Amino acid sequence: MGSEMQVVPARRGRAVRLKAGQAIRIVNTHGSQVVDTWAFNADDMGEFMSMEHLHATLGSVFPVTGGALVTNRRRPILVLEEDSSPGRHDTVIAACDVHRYALLGCQGYHDNCTDNLHAALGMLGLRSGETPAPLNLWMNIPIGAEGRIEWGEPLSKPGDHVVLRAAMDCIVAMSTCPQDMIPINGANCTPTEVHYEVLG
Amino acid sequence: MGSEMQVVPARRGRAVRLKAGQAIRIVNTHGSQVVDTWAFNADDMGEFMSMEHLHATLGSVFPVTGGALVTNRRRPILVLEEDSSPGRHDTVIAACDVHRYALLGCQGYHDNCTDNLHAALGMLGLRSGETPAPLNLWMNIPIGAEGRIEWGEPLSKPGDHVVLRAAMDCIVAMSTCPQDMIPINGANCTPTEVHYEVLG
Repeated sequence: MGSEMQVVPARRGRAVRLKAGQAIRIVNTHGSQVVDTWAFNADDMGEFMSMEHLHATLGSVFPVTGGALVTNRRRPILVLEEDSSPGRHDTVIAACDVHRYALLGCQGYHDNCTDNLHAALGMLGLRSGETPAPLNLWMNIPIGAEGRIEWGEPLSKPGDHVVLRAAMDCIVAMSTCPQDMIPINGANCTPTEVHYEVLG
Repeated sequence: MGSEMQVVPARRGRAVRLKAGQAIRIVNTHGSQVVDTWAFNADDMGEFMSMEHLHATLGSVFPVTGGALVTNRRRPILVLEEDSSPGRHDTVIAACDVHRYALLGCQGYHDNCTDNLHAALGMLGLRSGETPAPLNLWMNIPIGAEGRIEWGEPLSKPGDHVVLRAAMDCIVAMSTCPQDMIPINGANCTPTEVHYEVLG
Protein backbone atom coordinates (compact mmCIF):
# COMPACT_ATOMS: atom_id res chain seq x y z
CA MET A 1 0.00 0.00 0.00
CA GLY A 2 3.04 2.32 -0.14
CA SER A 3 3.29 5.03 -2.75
CA GLU A 4 5.71 7.55 -4.19
CA MET A 5 6.14 11.18 -3.35
CA GLN A 6 3.85 13.39 -5.39
CA VAL A 7 4.13 17.11 -5.94
CA VAL A 8 1.70 19.91 -5.35
CA PRO A 9 3.22 22.54 -7.64
CA ALA A 10 3.60 26.08 -6.32
CA ARG A 11 0.30 28.05 -6.39
CA ARG A 12 -1.79 24.97 -7.22
CA GLY A 13 -4.18 22.46 -5.68
CA ARG A 14 -4.36 18.69 -5.54
CA ALA A 15 -6.81 16.25 -3.94
CA VAL A 16 -6.44 12.60 -2.99
CA ARG A 17 -8.76 9.85 -1.83
CA LEU A 18 -7.92 8.13 1.45
CA LYS A 19 -9.52 4.99 2.81
CA ALA A 20 -10.13 4.91 6.55
CA GLY A 21 -6.81 3.91 8.11
CA GLN A 22 -4.69 5.28 5.30
CA ALA A 23 -2.73 8.47 5.88
CA ILE A 24 -1.22 11.31 3.92
CA ARG A 25 2.22 12.65 4.73
CA ILE A 26 2.62 16.26 3.59
CA VAL A 27 6.16 17.61 3.42
CA ASN A 28 7.04 21.29 3.54
CA THR A 29 9.83 20.69 1.06
CA HIS A 30 11.30 24.18 1.04
CA GLY A 31 10.25 24.96 4.59
CA SER A 32 8.01 27.99 4.57
CA GLN A 33 5.05 27.11 2.36
CA VAL A 34 1.54 27.36 3.77
CA VAL A 35 -0.75 24.53 2.64
CA ASP A 36 -4.48 25.16 2.92
CA THR A 37 -6.00 21.76 3.66
CA TRP A 38 -9.54 20.41 3.57
CA ALA A 39 -11.17 17.02 4.09
CA PHE A 40 -14.55 15.75 2.92
CA ASN A 41 -16.43 12.58 3.74
CA ALA A 42 -15.97 10.41 0.62
CA ASP A 43 -19.62 9.32 0.83
CA ASP A 44 -21.11 12.78 1.41
CA MET A 45 -19.44 16.01 0.34
CA GLY A 46 -21.82 17.82 2.71
CA GLU A 47 -19.79 16.53 5.63
CA PHE A 48 -16.35 18.12 5.85
CA MET A 49 -13.60 19.05 8.27
CA SER A 50 -14.76 22.20 10.04
CA MET A 51 -12.51 24.56 11.96
CA GLU A 52 -15.38 26.16 13.90
CA HIS A 53 -16.52 22.75 15.11
CA LEU A 54 -12.93 21.74 15.83
CA HIS A 55 -12.47 24.74 18.14
CA ALA A 56 -15.33 23.56 20.34
CA THR A 57 -14.19 19.94 20.37
CA LEU A 58 -10.55 20.73 21.00
CA GLY A 59 -10.86 23.78 23.27
CA SER A 60 -8.06 25.37 21.28
CA VAL A 61 -7.42 27.31 18.09
CA PHE A 62 -4.31 25.22 17.38
CA PRO A 63 -4.52 21.56 16.40
CA VAL A 64 -2.92 19.09 18.77
CA THR A 65 -0.57 16.30 17.69
CA GLY A 66 -2.37 13.01 18.29
CA GLY A 67 -5.73 14.74 18.27
CA ALA A 68 -8.65 14.33 15.92
CA LEU A 69 -9.80 16.89 13.38
CA VAL A 70 -13.58 16.83 13.26
CA THR A 71 -16.31 17.49 10.74
CA ASN A 72 -19.35 19.74 10.79
CA ARG A 73 -21.10 16.70 12.33
CA ARG A 74 -18.42 16.63 15.04
CA ARG A 75 -17.01 13.28 13.94
CA PRO A 76 -13.28 12.62 13.55
CA ILE A 77 -12.30 12.67 9.89
CA LEU A 78 -8.49 12.96 10.24
CA VAL A 79 -6.02 12.53 13.07
CA LEU A 80 -2.91 14.72 13.19
CA GLU A 81 -0.68 11.76 13.88
CA GLU A 82 2.75 13.35 13.41
CA ASP A 83 4.01 16.90 13.21
CA SER A 84 7.74 17.61 13.05
CA SER A 85 7.16 21.38 13.07
CA PRO A 86 6.41 23.58 16.12
CA GLY A 87 2.69 22.95 15.58
CA ARG A 88 1.65 26.41 14.54
CA HIS A 89 -1.10 25.80 12.00
CA ASP A 90 -3.84 28.35 11.51
CA THR A 91 -7.53 27.53 11.95
CA VAL A 92 -9.17 30.97 11.97
CA ILE A 93 -8.38 32.52 8.55
CA ALA A 94 -10.41 31.89 5.39
CA ALA A 95 -8.82 30.55 2.23
CA CYS A 96 -7.59 33.38 0.02
CA ASP A 97 -9.73 34.22 -2.99
CA VAL A 98 -9.95 36.71 -5.85
CA HIS A 99 -11.65 39.19 -3.50
CA ARG A 100 -8.74 39.05 -1.06
CA TYR A 101 -6.18 39.86 -3.73
CA ALA A 102 -8.33 42.63 -5.21
CA LEU A 103 -8.50 44.24 -1.75
CA LEU A 104 -4.71 43.96 -1.50
CA GLY A 105 -4.44 45.92 -4.74
CA CYS A 106 -3.94 43.16 -7.28
CA GLN A 107 -5.07 44.03 -10.81
CA GLY A 108 -6.56 41.10 -12.72
CA TYR A 109 -6.67 37.46 -11.72
CA HIS A 110 -4.46 36.08 -8.96
CA ASP A 111 -4.10 32.37 -8.19
CA ASN A 112 -5.88 31.61 -4.93
CA CYS A 113 -6.62 28.74 -2.56
CA THR A 114 -10.39 28.88 -3.01
CA ASP A 115 -10.18 28.28 -6.76
CA ASN A 116 -7.41 25.72 -6.19
CA LEU A 117 -9.69 23.72 -3.88
CA HIS A 118 -12.48 23.53 -6.42
CA ALA A 119 -10.09 22.77 -9.29
CA ALA A 120 -8.47 19.98 -7.26
CA LEU A 121 -11.86 18.44 -6.45
CA GLY A 122 -12.79 18.78 -10.11
CA MET A 123 -9.74 16.69 -11.10
CA LEU A 124 -11.36 13.85 -9.12
CA GLY A 125 -14.77 14.51 -10.65
CA LEU A 126 -16.03 15.94 -7.38
CA ARG A 127 -17.78 19.16 -6.49
CA SER A 128 -18.42 21.07 -3.29
CA GLY A 129 -20.91 23.91 -3.05
CA GLU A 130 -19.00 25.20 -0.07
CA THR A 131 -15.51 26.42 0.68
CA PRO A 132 -15.07 25.32 4.29
CA ALA A 133 -12.62 27.23 6.45
CA PRO A 134 -9.34 25.38 5.84
CA LEU A 135 -6.71 23.97 8.15
CA ASN A 136 -3.85 26.22 7.09
CA LEU A 137 -0.82 24.03 7.64
CA TRP A 138 2.25 26.01 8.76
CA MET A 139 0.42 29.34 8.56
CA ASN A 140 1.59 31.22 11.62
CA ILE A 141 -1.19 33.39 13.01
CA PRO A 142 -0.55 34.29 16.66
CA ILE A 143 -3.62 35.59 18.50
CA GLY A 144 -2.88 38.17 21.18
CA ALA A 145 -4.62 38.62 24.52
CA GLU A 146 -7.08 41.15 23.12
CA GLY A 147 -7.86 38.95 20.16
CA ARG A 148 -5.46 40.74 17.84
CA ILE A 149 -4.28 38.61 14.92
CA GLU A 150 -0.71 38.85 13.61
CA TRP A 151 0.44 37.63 10.22
CA GLY A 152 3.62 35.74 11.03
CA GLU A 153 6.09 33.86 8.89
CA PRO A 154 6.02 30.04 9.14
CA LEU A 155 8.04 28.53 12.00
CA SER A 156 8.69 25.37 9.98
CA LYS A 157 11.95 24.34 8.33
CA PRO A 158 12.71 22.52 5.05
CA GLY A 159 11.53 18.92 5.21
CA ASP A 160 9.08 19.38 8.08
CA HIS A 161 6.09 17.14 7.67
CA VAL A 162 2.71 16.26 9.07
CA VAL A 163 0.93 12.92 8.88
CA LEU A 164 -2.85 13.04 8.70
CA ARG A 165 -4.50 9.64 9.25
CA ALA A 166 -8.01 9.13 7.84
CA ALA A 167 -10.65 8.24 10.42
CA MET A 168 -13.20 7.65 7.64
CA ASP A 169 -13.04 7.26 3.88
CA CYS A 170 -12.34 10.80 2.77
CA ILE A 171 -10.99 13.23 0.21
CA VAL A 172 -8.09 15.42 1.31
CA ALA A 173 -7.51 18.57 -0.73
CA MET A 174 -4.42 20.78 -0.50
CA SER A 175 -3.48 24.14 -1.96
CA THR A 176 0.02 25.61 -1.91
CA CYS A 177 -1.08 29.09 -0.95
CA PRO A 178 -0.23 31.53 -3.76
CA GLN A 179 0.00 34.48 -1.37
CA ASP A 180 2.91 36.62 -2.64
CA MET A 181 1.71 40.06 -1.51
CA ILE A 182 2.26 39.58 2.23
CA PRO A 183 5.01 37.37 3.79
CA ILE A 184 2.73 34.56 4.98
CA ASN A 185 4.83 32.09 2.94
CA GLY A 186 8.09 33.48 4.32
CA ALA A 187 9.95 36.76 4.01
CA ASN A 188 10.72 36.45 0.31
CA CYS A 189 7.03 36.14 -0.62
CA THR A 190 7.68 33.26 -3.02
CA PRO A 191 5.20 30.37 -3.02
CA THR A 192 6.86 26.98 -3.55
CA GLU A 193 5.93 23.39 -4.29
CA VAL A 194 5.36 20.85 -1.52
CA HIS A 195 5.31 17.05 -1.67
CA TYR A 196 3.04 14.37 -0.30
CA GLU A 197 2.66 10.62 -0.19
CA VAL A 198 -0.15 8.31 0.75
CA LEU A 199 0.73 5.85 3.51
CA GLY A 200 -1.10 2.52 3.45
CA MET B 1 -39.86 53.38 9.41
CA GLY B 2 -39.78 52.73 13.18
CA SER B 3 -41.07 49.48 14.61
CA GLU B 4 -41.91 47.80 17.88
CA MET B 5 -39.86 45.52 20.03
CA GLN B 6 -40.18 41.89 19.01
CA VAL B 7 -39.25 38.83 20.99
CA VAL B 8 -36.99 35.93 20.20
CA PRO B 9 -38.33 33.37 22.70
CA ALA B 10 -35.84 31.40 24.74
CA ARG B 11 -34.28 28.51 22.77
CA ARG B 12 -35.72 29.68 19.45
CA GLY B 13 -34.77 31.41 16.21
CA ARG B 14 -36.09 34.38 14.27
CA ALA B 15 -35.08 36.06 11.02
CA VAL B 16 -35.80 39.51 9.65
CA ARG B 17 -35.29 41.28 6.37
CA LEU B 18 -33.32 44.53 6.40
CA LYS B 19 -32.97 46.99 3.56
CA ALA B 20 -29.56 48.59 3.13
CA GLY B 21 -29.42 51.45 5.63
CA GLN B 22 -31.89 49.88 8.05
CA ALA B 23 -30.60 48.43 11.29
CA ILE B 24 -31.56 45.89 13.91
CA ARG B 25 -31.17 46.60 17.61
CA ILE B 26 -30.83 43.39 19.62
CA VAL B 27 -31.34 43.68 23.37
CA ASN B 28 -29.96 41.20 25.88
CA THR B 29 -33.08 41.61 27.96
CA HIS B 30 -32.07 39.47 30.91
CA GLY B 31 -28.36 40.12 30.51
CA SER B 32 -26.61 36.82 29.94
CA GLN B 33 -28.15 35.28 26.84
CA VAL B 34 -25.92 34.34 23.93
CA VAL B 35 -27.48 35.10 20.53
CA ASP B 36 -26.04 33.26 17.55
CA THR B 37 -26.38 35.66 14.62
CA TRP B 38 -26.10 35.24 10.86
CA ALA B 39 -26.59 37.51 7.86
CA PHE B 40 -27.29 36.57 4.24
CA ASN B 41 -27.36 38.72 1.10
CA ALA B 42 -31.10 39.12 0.35
CA ASP B 43 -30.43 38.62 -3.36
CA ASP B 44 -28.16 35.57 -3.01
CA MET B 45 -28.21 33.21 -0.05
CA GLY B 46 -24.81 31.95 -1.22
CA GLU B 47 -23.27 35.17 0.09
CA PHE B 48 -23.31 35.39 3.87
CA MET B 49 -21.50 36.92 6.82
CA SER B 50 -18.38 34.82 7.36
CA MET B 51 -16.31 34.78 10.51
CA GLU B 52 -13.22 33.29 8.84
CA HIS B 53 -13.25 36.07 6.26
CA LEU B 54 -13.93 38.65 8.97
CA HIS B 55 -10.82 37.58 10.87
CA ALA B 56 -8.61 38.40 7.89
CA THR B 57 -10.34 41.71 7.17
CA LEU B 58 -10.38 42.86 10.77
CA GLY B 59 -7.08 41.41 12.01
CA SER B 60 -8.90 40.33 15.17
CA VAL B 61 -11.10 37.57 16.52
CA PHE B 62 -13.34 40.12 18.25
CA PRO B 63 -15.62 42.44 16.30
CA VAL B 64 -14.93 46.16 16.62
CA THR B 65 -17.59 48.76 17.34
CA GLY B 66 -17.93 50.91 14.23
CA GLY B 67 -16.42 48.20 12.09
CA ALA B 68 -17.91 46.24 9.23
CA LEU B 69 -18.83 42.56 9.34
CA VAL B 70 -17.99 41.03 5.98
CA THR B 71 -19.26 38.23 3.79
CA ASN B 72 -17.54 35.26 2.17
CA ARG B 73 -16.97 37.67 -0.74
CA ARG B 74 -15.29 40.08 1.69
CA ARG B 75 -17.96 42.77 1.29
CA PRO B 76 -19.50 44.59 4.26
CA ILE B 77 -22.97 43.22 5.02
CA LEU B 78 -23.50 44.68 8.52
CA VAL B 79 -21.81 47.35 10.59
CA LEU B 80 -21.60 46.93 14.37
CA GLU B 81 -22.75 50.48 14.95
CA GLU B 82 -23.39 50.40 18.71
CA ASP B 83 -22.46 48.01 21.49
CA SER B 84 -23.24 48.87 25.11
CA SER B 85 -21.56 45.68 26.38
CA PRO B 86 -17.81 45.09 26.87
CA GLY B 87 -17.58 43.87 23.27
CA ARG B 88 -16.87 40.24 23.95
CA HIS B 89 -18.64 38.41 21.17
CA ASP B 90 -17.37 35.07 19.93
CA THR B 91 -16.37 34.44 16.32
CA VAL B 92 -14.56 31.09 16.49
CA ILE B 93 -17.14 28.58 17.80
CA ALA B 94 -19.67 26.76 15.60
CA ALA B 95 -23.39 26.95 16.26
CA CYS B 96 -24.53 24.19 18.58
CA ASP B 97 -26.31 21.25 16.98
CA VAL B 98 -27.74 17.84 17.86
CA HIS B 99 -24.27 16.34 17.62
CA ARG B 100 -22.90 18.77 20.20
CA TYR B 101 -25.57 17.89 22.74
CA ALA B 102 -25.22 14.17 22.10
CA LEU B 103 -21.48 14.46 22.84
CA LEU B 104 -22.34 16.34 26.06
CA GLY B 105 -24.47 13.36 27.07
CA CYS B 106 -27.94 14.53 26.14
CA GLN B 107 -30.40 11.73 25.42
CA GLY B 108 -32.88 12.52 22.65
CA TYR B 109 -33.45 15.81 20.88
CA HIS B 110 -32.11 19.08 22.28
CA ASP B 111 -33.02 22.49 20.88
CA ASN B 112 -30.01 23.91 19.06
CA CYS B 113 -28.89 26.99 17.15
CA THR B 114 -28.28 25.16 13.87
CA ASP B 115 -31.87 23.94 13.63
CA ASN B 116 -33.09 27.34 14.89
CA LEU B 117 -31.29 29.07 12.02
CA HIS B 118 -32.90 26.90 9.39
CA ALA B 119 -36.33 27.10 11.03
CA ALA B 120 -36.07 30.89 11.21
CA LEU B 121 -35.12 31.12 7.53
CA GLY B 122 -37.97 28.76 6.73
CA MET B 123 -40.45 31.16 8.39
CA LEU B 124 -39.44 33.69 5.70
CA GLY B 125 -39.68 31.07 2.95
CA LEU B 126 -35.89 30.97 2.64
CA ARG B 127 -33.39 28.18 2.65
CA SER B 128 -29.63 27.93 3.09
CA GLY B 129 -27.65 24.82 2.25
CA GLU B 130 -24.98 25.99 4.67
CA THR B 131 -24.72 26.78 8.34
CA PRO B 132 -22.10 29.52 8.34
CA ALA B 133 -20.04 30.04 11.48
CA PRO B 134 -22.17 32.51 13.47
CA LEU B 135 -21.36 35.77 15.20
CA ASN B 136 -22.10 34.64 18.74
CA LEU B 137 -23.27 37.84 20.41
CA TRP B 138 -22.27 38.05 24.08
CA MET B 139 -20.65 34.61 24.03
CA ASN B 140 -17.48 35.06 26.07
CA ILE B 141 -14.69 32.90 24.69
CA PRO B 142 -11.29 34.18 25.81
CA ILE B 143 -8.36 32.80 23.81
CA GLY B 144 -5.14 32.33 25.77
CA ALA B 145 -1.58 32.87 24.59
CA GLU B 146 -1.18 29.24 23.54
CA GLY B 147 -4.49 29.26 21.71
CA ARG B 148 -6.41 27.71 24.60
CA ILE B 149 -10.14 28.47 24.53
CA GLU B 150 -12.08 29.11 27.72
CA TRP B 151 -15.84 28.89 28.04
CA GLY B 152 -16.70 32.06 29.97
CA GLU B 153 -19.97 33.51 31.17
CA PRO B 154 -21.25 36.59 29.32
CA LEU B 155 -19.84 39.93 30.48
CA SER B 156 -23.05 41.71 29.50
CA LYS B 157 -25.75 43.06 31.82
CA PRO B 158 -29.55 43.22 31.51
CA GLY B 159 -30.58 45.64 28.77
CA ASP B 160 -27.25 45.67 26.96
CA HIS B 161 -27.75 46.03 23.24
CA VAL B 162 -26.02 46.03 19.90
CA VAL B 163 -27.08 47.85 16.75
CA LEU B 164 -26.25 46.14 13.46
CA ARG B 165 -26.71 48.42 10.42
CA ALA B 166 -27.27 46.76 7.04
CA ALA B 167 -24.68 47.61 4.40
CA MET B 168 -26.71 45.72 1.77
CA ASP B 169 -30.23 44.31 1.58
CA CYS B 170 -29.96 41.29 3.82
CA ILE B 171 -31.57 38.72 6.05
CA VAL B 172 -30.47 38.69 9.70
CA ALA B 173 -31.14 35.49 11.63
CA MET B 174 -30.83 35.09 15.39
CA SER B 175 -31.01 32.14 17.77
CA THR B 176 -31.24 32.41 21.54
CA CYS B 177 -28.71 29.69 22.24
CA PRO B 178 -30.44 26.78 24.04
CA GLN B 179 -27.21 25.69 25.75
CA ASP B 180 -28.20 24.60 29.26
CA MET B 181 -25.51 21.96 29.87
CA ILE B 182 -22.53 24.32 30.26
CA PRO B 183 -22.77 27.89 31.70
CA ILE B 184 -22.27 29.73 28.40
CA ASN B 185 -25.58 31.58 29.02
CA GLY B 186 -24.63 32.43 32.60
CA ALA B 187 -24.05 30.46 35.77
CA ASN B 188 -27.63 29.27 36.16
CA CYS B 189 -27.66 27.57 32.73
CA THR B 190 -31.08 28.96 31.85
CA PRO B 191 -31.61 30.25 28.31
CA THR B 192 -33.87 33.31 28.14
CA GLU B 193 -35.73 35.40 25.60
CA VAL B 194 -34.15 38.47 24.00
CA HIS B 195 -35.80 41.36 22.16
CA TYR B 196 -35.12 43.21 18.96
CA GLU B 197 -36.42 46.04 16.85
CA VAL B 198 -35.81 47.16 13.31
CA LEU B 199 -34.61 50.77 13.03
CA GLY B 200 -35.57 52.59 9.83
